[in-house]
Formats: sequence, structure tokens, C-alpha cells
Amino acid sequence: MEKIVEQGILYDFYGELLTEHQRQIYEDAVFNDMSLSELADAYGISRQGIHDLLKRCDKMLLSYESKLHLVERFEKIKRKIRQINETEDMKTVRKISAEILEEL
Amino acid sequence: MEKIVEQGILYDFYGELLTEHQRQIYEDAVFNDMSLSELADAYGISRQGIHDLLKRCDKMLLSYESKLHLVERFEKIKRKIRQINETEDMKTVRKISAEILEEL
Repeated sequence: MEKIVEQGILYDFYGELLTEHQRQIYEDAVFNDMSLSELADAYGISRQGIHDLLKRCDKMLLSYESKLHLVERFEKIKRKIRQINETEDMKTVRKISAEILEEL
Repeated sequence: MEKIVEQGILYDFYGELLTEHQRQIYEDAVFNDMSLSELADAYGISRQGIHDLLKRCDKMLLSYESKLHLVERFEKIKRKIRQINETEDMKTVRKISAEILEEL
């Protein structure tokens, strides 16, 4: 489950940097939960070919994150916004929002 | 000025996706304000070569933004955080922070 979530998040951020062909197969695998055999049938590629393509996509998405750290930055901001949402104290709001502006 | 700022922001987000060589020359041009002639001398490339490299870098950075829209998303969040920073009303804080969480 953890892996599916993470793949989904990385794909949301960097999926547009994959080719249209890669995106179709990756979406069917990760979001539509199709098996290697189903994907192989659907796209006329060997199971090994599908497997390699998915691994290559994962690697590319991870590589973009390791260079750009945008998922990490967004997640950090998200946590702070949740803190703002949970406090009743305006001083705390000011403190956290200043921290976020420094991140941005 | 506008262009320098924009180049700088795009570079902050996507610069890591350029090669080390491109990054060096791009930084010298955009942040250290070196001229084409100075860059040509420093890197042993023709002025035309430097010019082409810088144009290619600009194009790549813009292309990443046109696909990923991350500068745009960050700027949007930044504007909303500033609104949070300026209000005295906790209800407004809640409303804006909920909007930001939807963006994230």
C-alpha cells in the first residue's frame, strides 16, 4: 500500500515527464491495478517488456524527486498548513506561516 | 529585470535537471551577469556557442515548467500564505488554509 501511494504521488508530480506511451502503461499498472499479463496482452509487449518499462518509469520518477525534492517540499508545507488548521492561537498561525514563506 | 527574476525562479526549481556544464555557464550568465564574450573566453566556446547553450537552457527550463507547473503552484500557495499572514480573523485563516490543502 505504501508503495502504491508513493508511486501515485511521484507520478502526480513528475508523470508529465514520461512519454505518452509510458504514462498509459504506468497508469494502467498503478492506478487501474492491471497485472503484467493483462498489460502484456493489452499493449502487445512481452511480460518482461512491461516489467522493464515499469521499473524504468519508477526509476525515472525517483530520479526526478532525488534532484528536485518537490514532493518532499510540498509534504513539508502540507504538514505546516495542517498545524495552522489545528491551532486556535493567532501567534502560532503567524509563526508557522512565516516558516512556510521561508520554505517557498 | 522581470526576465532575470523569472529565469532565476525557474532555475531554482529545475536547474538540477540541466547538466553540470550547462549549470555552470547558466549561473555565470544569469546570476553572475557575465557577458557572452566573457563566457566565451572563460569556457573556450564561441560566443555563438554560449548564446545557443543559454537559449537551450531557457527552453528546457520553460519546458519543464509547462509540463509540471510547479513554480505556478508554489506561487499560488505563497500568495495565500501571505493572505493568512495579513488577516486577524481566524475564520479567514481556516478558509484559506483549507484552500491551500486542496491545492497540495
